[in-house]
Amino acid sequence: MKIYNKAWVLDSRPKDFFEKENVRMIELKIPEVAKGEFLVKNIWLSFDPTQLNWMKRDTYADKIEIGEVVRSFSVGQIVESKNDQFKVGDFVSGLFGWQEYAISNGSFVNHVRPIEFANPPWYSLSLFGITGMSAYFGVKDIGKVRKGDTFLVSSAAGSVGSVAGQIAKIIGAKVVGIAGGEKKCKWVVEEAGFDHCIDYQKEDVYERISELFPEGIDVYFDNVGGEILDIVISKIRQNGRIVMCGAISGYGTTNFYPLRNYANLISKRARMEGFIVSDFIARFGEAYKDLYIWLKENRLKQREEITFGLENAPEVFKKLFTGANFGKQLLKIADI
Amino acid sequence: MKIYNKAWVLDSRPKDFFEKENVRMIELKIPEVAKGEFLVKNIWLSFDPTQLNWMKRDTYADKIEIGEVVRSFSVGQIVESKNDQFKVGDFVSGLFGWQEYAISNGSFVNHVRPIEFANPPWYSLSLFGITGMSAYFGVKDIGKVRKGDTFLVSSAAGSVGSVAGQIAKIIGAKVVGIAGGEKKCKWVVEEAGFDHCIDYQKEDVYERISELFPEGIDVYFDNVGGEILDIVISKIRQNGRIVMCGAISGYGTTNFYPLRNYANLISKRARMEGFIVSDFIARFGEAYKDLYIWLKENRLKQREEITFGLENAPEVFKKLFTGANFGKQLLKIADI
Repeated sequence: MKIYNKAWVLDSRPKDFFEKENVRMIELKIPEVAKGEFLVKNIWLSFDPTQLNWMKRDTYADKIEIGEVVRSFSVGQIVESKNDQFKVGDFVSGLFGWQEYAISNGSFVNHVRPIEFANPPWYSLSLFGITGMSAYFGVKDIGKVRKGDTFLVSSAAGSVGSVAGQIAKIIGAKVVGIAGGEKKCKWVVEEAGFDHCIDYQKEDVYERISELFPEGIDVYFDNVGGEILDIVISKIRQNGRIVMCGAISGYGTTNFYPLRNYANLISKRARMEGFIVSDFIARFGEAYKDLYIWLKENRLKQREEITFGLENAPEVFKKLFTGANFGKQLLKIADI
Repeated sequence: MKIYNKAWVLDSRPKDFFEKENVRMIELKIPEVAKGEFLVKNIWLSFDPTQLNWMKRDTYADKIEIGEVVRSFSVGQIVESKNDQFKVGDFVSGLFGWQEYAISNGSFVNHVRPIEFANPPWYSLSLFGITGMSAYFGVKDIGKVRKGDTFLVSSAAGSVGSVAGQIAKIIGAKVVGIAGGEKKCKWVVEEAGFDHCIDYQKEDVYERISELFPEGIDVYFDNVGGEILDIVISKIRQNGRIVMCGAISGYGTTNFYPLRNYANLISKRARMEGFIVSDFIARFGEAYKDLYIWLKENRLKQREEITFGLENAPEVFKKLFTGANFGKQLLKIADI
C-alpha cells in the first residue's frame, strides 16, 4: 500500500477562465481508514464544466476551499475497506477528486458493477453518469420533446449535447446541432445522426437558424448561453422550451453576454428553465434502462477522449472551455 | 341613428414610446349593417400596454395597419342588429377599437349580461376581462403559487399587478409589490393588503429585495422586464418561477435593458415563462367564479380610473408608459 497520494489542490480562485496556476500538485499522506470508511484507488477522472463553478464560488454546491483537493467525479477501485457495503475490488463512482487515492464513508458513492450497463466502468462517468443523465432528463423532462418537434442543441459535439441530440432524434424530433469546426460537424451528422450541424466558426448562426427553422424552434437544449441563446430566443416557436443545462460561454467571463430578446418569450408563450441533474437521482434507473437499450440497438453513439496521467488534469480540464473539447473528456490515472 | 363615426386611426408606427402624433382622428361613414352583423355603440374603452405592440409590429397578433382604427377592447351596447345571437340593447365586449361605433359579425365578442359578475358592465374590461384573467392564470397556472411561497410583483398599483398580488395573498403567499411613489405604495399595502411595497422611486430595489426576501423569491410576477427582472433573477429561490406577463420597460425602447444574471436560473433550477391570456379562454369561467366570490367577500380591491371623452384616448393611453398609471385605465366615451 502506498502511503503518499498525489493530489491537485486549489491554490487560487479562477477569475475568468481556469488557468493551470489556479491549482497546485502536492503529496499528501493517506490517513488511516477508519471504521465505516474505505480507500479508493482512482482510475478514471471525469471533467465537467460545472467544476469551474465549484472552484469559483458557492452555487448549488459549496465552493471548493483553497487548499482543498479539486472536486470531480471519478471511478475507482476499492483497495481497503472497513465498511460492509463496500468490499475490496469493487468499482465505485463518486466525487473522489483530482487525486490518486480517496477516503470515503460511502455517501454519494455508487457501485459501478451493479449497473450492468456500466461496462466498461468509465461509462458510469459518461453515458451512465451525470453526462447522460443531464441529456436524458433535460430532453425528456425539461424540454418535453415530442415527435415532430424541431430541436436545436449547442455544443453538439460535446458530451451532453451529442447525447441530447440523439435522444431527441430517437423521440422523433428534427435535430440540428451547433458545433465548432468541420471535423466536429461531420461527426455530429454522420456518426451521431443529426439532421444538420451549424458550424459556428464558419457560418452565420443567425442566418442558418433562420434557414433550418423556418417555423421556429420548439426546443433548444442550451449548453453555452450568451449570444446564441439570445438568437434562439428571437427564433423560438409558440410554446417553445429552452432547456438551460449550462452556460459555458459565461463560466469564464465576468462580463457575460446579456440577453436582449427575452420579451419574445411572452408573445411566444415560451419558457426558459434551468435544472441540476442531481434533482433527478431518484429516477436515474429509468434513464439507465432506456439508454442501455438504445446503446445495444446501436442507436446511440458515444465519443470519449481518454488522456493519461494525473499530471495532465489541468490541461484536459482547460479543453472544456477553449472549443477544443470533442466528446466526453476522461483522464485515466492508473491501471486497473 | 348617427351616420358618421369618430375614430382614431393609426397614422404612423410608434418608434419608442407612443406619441399623440402616431394617431389621427377622422370621421368615417358608418357602413350598412349586413346580414349576420350588428352595430355597437362603444361606451367604455380599455387601455392595455400590449396595444403598443399591436401598433408597432406583428407579434402574437397582427399589427394594426396604417390608416386602420386603433384596436382595443371595449364594452358597448348594440344599437342595430341583423344577427340572431346579438339583440339591440345587449351589452357586449370585444375588440371594437378607439371609435364611437363598430360593426361586428360577432366573432370574439362576448355578452356582458350573461356574466352576472360583470356589473357594472365595465367590469368585463377589468377584473372580468383580460386584466383579471391575466392576473388569475398568471398566478395560478404559470406561477403555481402555493401557500407559504414568497411572491413579488412589479407594477403593483397597476391593473394586473394589483390583482395578481391579492390573488397570491388569498392563496397564502407572503406578498411584496413594487410601485412608483408613496401614494401608490400606501394603496398597495393599506387597501390591497400586500405585506410590503417597495417604492422604486425612493428606495434601492436591490437592497429592499434582499431585506424582504432573505431566502429568495419563489414567484415573481413580472410586468416590467428590464433591470428589476435582472435583480430578481439574481435573488430567485430554488425552483423559483418568473411569470412573464409584460415587459413594459421595454415596450417603449429600442435598446431594451439586457439580462446578465440568467445563468442563475440553472443553479437555482428556476423557470421564466411567458404567457398570453387568450390561451386560457376556455377556462375563463373558472376564474370568473373565484374572482366573483373573492370580490363579494371583499377580499379583492379594484381600482379603476375612468376618464371621459373619446378625444382623450391618446392621453390616457400614454399614461400606461409614464408611471402615471394607477389602477385600470378606462375611457367612457358615451352615456348608456
